[in-house]
Amino acid sequence: MKNEFDTALPSIRQVQTLIKEATAVELKLMSGELLTGKIDWQDQNCLCLLDENKQPTIVWRHAIAYLRLQSH
Amino acid sequence: MKNEFDTALPSIRQVQTLIKEATAVELKLMSGELLTGKIDWQDQNCLCLLDENKQPTIVWRHAIAYLRLQSH
Amino acid sequence: MKNEFDTALPSIRQVQTLIKEATAVELKLMSGELLTGKIDWQDQNCLCLLDENKQPTIVWRHAIAYLRLQSH
Amino acid sequence: MKNEFDTALPSIRQVQTLIKEATAVELKLMSGELLTGKIDWQDQNCLCLLDENKQPTIVWRHAIAYLRLQSH
Amino acid sequence: MKNEFDTALPSIRQVQTLIKEATAVELKLMSGELLTGKIDWQDQNCLCLLDENKQPTIVWRHAIAYLRLQSH
Amino acid sequence: MKNEFDTALPSIRQVQTLIKEATAVELKLMSGELLTGKIDWQDQNCLCLLDENKQPTIVWRHAIAYLRLQSH
Repeated sequence: MKNEFDTALPSIRQVQTLIKEATAVELKLMSGELLTGKIDWQDQNCLCLLDENKQPTIVWRHAIAYLRLQSH
Repeated sequence: MKNEFDTALPSIRQVQTLIKEATAVELKLMSGELLTGKIDWQDQNCLCLLDENKQPTIVWRHAIAYLRLQSH
Repeated sequence: MKNEFDTALPSIRQVQTLIKEATAVELKLMSGELLTGKIDWQDQNCLCLLDENKQPTIVWRHAIAYLRLQSH
Repeated sequence: MKNEFDTALPSIRQVQTLIKEATAVELKLMSGELLTGKIDWQDQNCLCLLDENKQPTIVWRHAIAYLRLQSH
Repeated sequence: MKNEFDTALPSIRQVQTLIKEATAVELKLMSGELLTGKIDWQDQNCLCLLDENKQPTIVWRHAIAYLRLQSH
Repeated sequence: MKNEFDTALPSIRQVQTLIKEATAVELKLMSGELLTGKIDWQDQNCLCLLDENKQPTIVWRHAIAYLRLQSH
């Protein structure tokens, strides 16, 4: 299905909540690589992740396999 | 073909049934990784899987290779 | 090219024939994994494969590399 | 760019010529796998390759990396 | 979601800033390969990276996993 | 973003220049494979590369990671 950036969609809303609450997350990429941090913003193309030093990583959506809360 | 999120399509309807019946499933990803759990919701972009501790994993559709019932 | 689910297209029609005739097929995935079975249905997003125990596997089209008749 | 199935495009026309002249080709897939044969037909979604025993393999376009004439 | 080249989007604007400020970046590709350099331009399809000898590499967006500032 | 075959775009124009000037290039694919040659033509779907024996390889755009001038 054509991907949609519609703020009413659960997938967009839940990321928006993770941004607002500054929740630590894990992003698993299609390549198997795991990124961790807090989501700073999202748009149609990308999510931006901040690491513990507040350094941003701009991750393309097409590269993301899944997202979950950071395990402790 | 342009992917469609049309609730009349078998691929959308059958996932909807799996959600309603809280069926345990296996999601095999394009990367070869296997995720298991119950599907909590689906939208155009993602499926959300709940593990046995009810922790959610938001899985992007483009990352999914196939879905089947959990083998016993 | 934008993929199309047009029943006049050879790629859609030939899968439809495989469904009707319950032909055993091999589906090779982009990941290299090989699935075998009979195709139960197709829609814009997915093909559904039934294994020898009639268990369904819903395979996303974007994950399929190629399809051929099962070798004996 | 949105892929197009426009018979005026070189990529579509040249495959059409390969079909008409029954030229033996190599298809290299994104996964690294190499398929060989003669192209039987093409449509928006797929190319169909016939092996030396005239057995068809339906290859999805998204899985193809490149196509060249079979090396001797 | 359909990717968009809209200069109001954070993902487009932030790359535009990296271009203007000639910031050294790392581009991690879907294949795991890492490219480094300064971004020279972006358009709908590609980003162009200049290495230390000012040699350009045209990188397709679909191949990019993530972008971050070059680590020291 | 929806890829565009617009001859005003830098990514299309620069490939057009490489064709006109018969510049030797390297094409790195998503699979990690490296192809070398001169670009013969481009269209919405593909680039065609000629090797030193003028043999053509039709490369699908979705398979390309990056393009650079051939290193000496």
